[in-house]
Amino acid sequence: MSGAQADIGVTGLAVMGANLARNFARNGYTVALHNRTAQKTHDLMSAHGDDGEFVATESLKELVDSLKAPRRVLIMVKAGAPVDAVIDQLVDLLDDGDIIIDAGNSHYEDTRRREAALAEKGLHFVGVGVSGGEEGALNGPAIMPGGSRESYVALGPLLESISADFEGEPCCAWIGPDGAGHYVKMVHNGIEYADMQVIGEAYDLLRQVGGLEPREQAGVFRAWNETELASYLIEITAEVLEQVDAATGQPLVDVIVDEAGQKGTGRWTAISGLDVGSPIGAIAESVFARSLSSQRAVRDAASSVLVSGTENVQIADVGAFVEDVRLALYASKLVSYAQGLDMLRAAASEYGWPLDIGTIASVWRDGCIIRADLLDDIMRAFGGRDTTRHPEPGTTSADQPANLLFAPFFAEAIGAAVPAWRRVVSVASAAGVPIPVFSSALSYYDGLRQERLPAALTQGLRDYFGAHTYRRVDREGTFHTLWSGDRTEVEA
Amino acid sequence: MSGAQADIGVTGLAVMGANLARNFARNGYTVALHNRTAQKTHDLMSAHGDDGEFVATESLKELVDSLKAPRRVLIMVKAGAPVDAVIDQLVDLLDDGDIIIDAGNSHYEDTRRREAALAEKGLHFVGVGVSGGEEGALNGPAIMPGGSRESYVALGPLLESISADFEGEPCCAWIGPDGAGHYVKMVHNGIEYADMQVIGEAYDLLRQVGGLEPREQAGVFRAWNETELASYLIEITAEVLEQVDAATGQPLVDVIVDEAGQKGTGRWTAISGLDVGSPIGAIAESVFARSLSSQRAVRDAASSVLVSGTENVQIADVGAFVEDVRLALYASKLVSYAQGLDMLRAAASEYGWPLDIGTIASVWRDGCIIRADLLDDIMRAFGGRDTTRHPEPGTTSADQPANLLFAPFFAEAIGAAVPAWRRVVSVASAAGVPIPVFSSALSYYDGLRQERLPAALTQGLRDYFGAHTYRRVDREGTFHTLWSGDRTEVEA
Repeated sequence: MSGAQADIGVTGLAVMGANLARNFARNGYTVALHNRTAQKTHDLMSAHGDDGEFVATESLKELVDSLKAPRRVLIMVKAGAPVDAVIDQLVDLLDDGDIIIDAGNSHYEDTRRREAALAEKGLHFVGVGVSGGEEGALNGPAIMPGGSRESYVALGPLLESISADFEGEPCCAWIGPDGAGHYVKMVHNGIEYADMQVIGEAYDLLRQVGGLEPREQAGVFRAWNETELASYLIEITAEVLEQVDAATGQPLVDVIVDEAGQKGTGRWTAISGLDVGSPIGAIAESVFARSLSSQRAVRDAASSVLVSGTENVQIADVGAFVEDVRLALYASKLVSYAQGLDMLRAAASEYGWPLDIGTIASVWRDGCIIRADLLDDIMRAFGGRDTTRHPEPGTTSADQPANLLFAPFFAEAIGAAVPAWRRVVSVASAAGVPIPVFSSALSYYDGLRQERLPAALTQGLRDYFGAHTYRRVDREGTFHTLWSGDRTEVEA
Repeated sequence: MSGAQADIGVTGLAVMGANLARNFARNGYTVALHNRTAQKTHDLMSAHGDDGEFVATESLKELVDSLKAPRRVLIMVKAGAPVDAVIDQLVDLLDDGDIIIDAGNSHYEDTRRREAALAEKGLHFVGVGVSGGEEGALNGPAIMPGGSRESYVALGPLLESISADFEGEPCCAWIGPDGAGHYVKMVHNGIEYADMQVIGEAYDLLRQVGGLEPREQAGVFRAWNETELASYLIEITAEVLEQVDAATGQPLVDVIVDEAGQKGTGRWTAISGLDVGSPIGAIAESVFARSLSSQRAVRDAASSVLVSGTENVQIADVGAFVEDVRLALYASKLVSYAQGLDMLRAAASEYGWPLDIGTIASVWRDGCIIRADLLDDIMRAFGGRDTTRHPEPGTTSADQPANLLFAPFFAEAIGAAVPAWRRVVSVASAAGVPIPVFSSALSYYDGLRQERLPAALTQGLRDYFGAHTYRRVDREGTFHTLWSGDRTEVEA
């Protein structure tokens, strides 16, 4: 085939790129293919050429020449320098108004930089967050495109047609300018870290305190998947816990090395939360829990040195305990979502993005790893999906709560869970089971609720040793006490 | 006066720079002075000219010309662009082997960049962390110099003579190359955040659960200052809690707005901990506690929406509760130090710094904000002060523990505290008092202790949805279960 007839080009045909290309083709688009080594292109053509219309090309020039205007070139290569390398090659081949799409897990700051540089050259650069793994890429991921609104006119229909959908609505919507798409995907992953950590804490408690073996717990998680916890991660937790290792006859979870890996997006989320000043303890603690698990040598030394100092914790009613743990998990999960959405608001303000939380939640309802019934509730709490609603950056619109937990549905839900949550944190602390996210989330909840926080004392101390001054509750101004003088107060 | 007779030059004569200059002069050094606006120089001369030998100069050229070789120019201006601006002006005025000293709170990455750039020009650049506030700068701060070892030969004696000393040993020592000094000062500040937060949590518990008013608590903290908690921050907590507001007759702490400020070094510490992969939850939670306190509008909305769900917590014996809280504070404090030192080890590995924890702890024993009897114990646990000991970056020497908590002294101390610590976390969780650091630190302790962590389940889930693979406890290799296939295991 020749001539400019392809709808979209895909360069980088490892499994994610290949699956996205096939997904486009299956949805009726003509897809031009390119890979640095042509063999991958041929392999894809011979294995899946009948998925739809493909145009195999052997160079980026050939790829570009095969595309209809405005040209849409999707890059799916390793984040970092490889993305810049491909962009550099594409720039000279493209014309004003063409669109370069980076669908990898790029850092949003890189995306902001690239978008600005390419805008100067008259090109659209669209950083797109894609979640759902290999399976999702092929059958319908959640898609979070950033970049200019103009670019979405030409690109959106294609993305919406390959994304997952939830009750007929695509799990895809324009997120916001420049790095907003990659940013929202990053926060999705940060929340995913917390989601997995709270599942881990529940599992640990059910086992160490509740005495439930993995196989029994598979049933518990399966039952939980029929409650408000219903979600992909709870569903597959049951599958993993049920899995028996063929070699040993042990539960698989018992033969897996207990050191959690990380590819960086959770850490990026925590760092960005700190940068924008959002209190995201639940997400950060999830990252730290993985880091701690990976300190093998230190952990091995610790177990012989550190005493437990625990009480003998008796669970009178295992069924009641299981329900308490379920509620603690749910409440902690709500807090991690509240924190993730709060940092979106803060980042929107920092970067000038008109992010709409309702629409973002709608995109996460299916296709992605954190997909859950809960996301539909969150979407509703933030005024539903409305792709025309773009609140002033850093604000919420009138029909949206200032914090997820203030939406009546969630205030009630977490209120119903909080007594159980408190019992679980108390029991875990007495029993010596680590619960970094359950407890961090509870302190966040209690911190929010307090009429007065001990931060007043912190301010007093800072004024004492550093003359940092303080404000008063009863009048305007900043004040300083002459601590090393006569201890009178002066206006600063 | 004219001619090159001054021992050191100081540019930037706001209070910190002025006090350091006076400190040098009082210790017998001839100090050349410069400020962008000459009035500050004149003011300093007329107010404190009799502190010692000063040379007032009106330009950086004059300042440089007044100095003996190798010239030592100390910059004390606002961190960021102003530092670069002064450096740019100095570069052309200085000769090979001269030393530029940045004594401000610069970010260590800036210091690394500047050191590399100036080394190429034959100049030494020394980033120096200085802690102790205005008072310390004048009378003896803790000083953490980085830069080349060679530069310390010419500069160290001056710094050691103006630093605080602890039982005859200077609270100053060469820390490590390039940004190491500023890095260690940054971690000092991160620990300081945690120190203040655990004091705040103790205060909050004593008040909300123990029923002790600020004035009563002043006595409690004063008594605690006679225990292993003895430290500057505990001492001044008593002073602040005792302070009565003249205008209202209320405790001062009750009229201070409970929103804690931050100048950034705590946030930098938490970000760096994430960057180097060190689990520093206690430090990060301290930063988040300040951020949460500053979300005024959200907090105001929360108190009317979020239910407490607390039990009525009865404290039978207030004295016993106070002692429990003291032990919880101490244990949490130990964890925050363990985390801060762990991240120093990780950063040493990352940046190639031969950091010696024993020597660093010795520097913190006096002069700085976290000065405490505890630091002398930490120094001992890490083999004492030995300025010739420079472990391979990222390692500890044979006489140093892998984690602070493993040193026999501290393993025993925290072991003795842990039952009380557990009771306090349980009670606070039941009573609804936020204790982000008490509980994060306890989960860290319990996480370290665990033979098996739920990270194994996390790895199973990651393998399920992302084919991230896992390792097995019983043999080498990486493995993947064919979750969407026949669920057999394959070697990856």
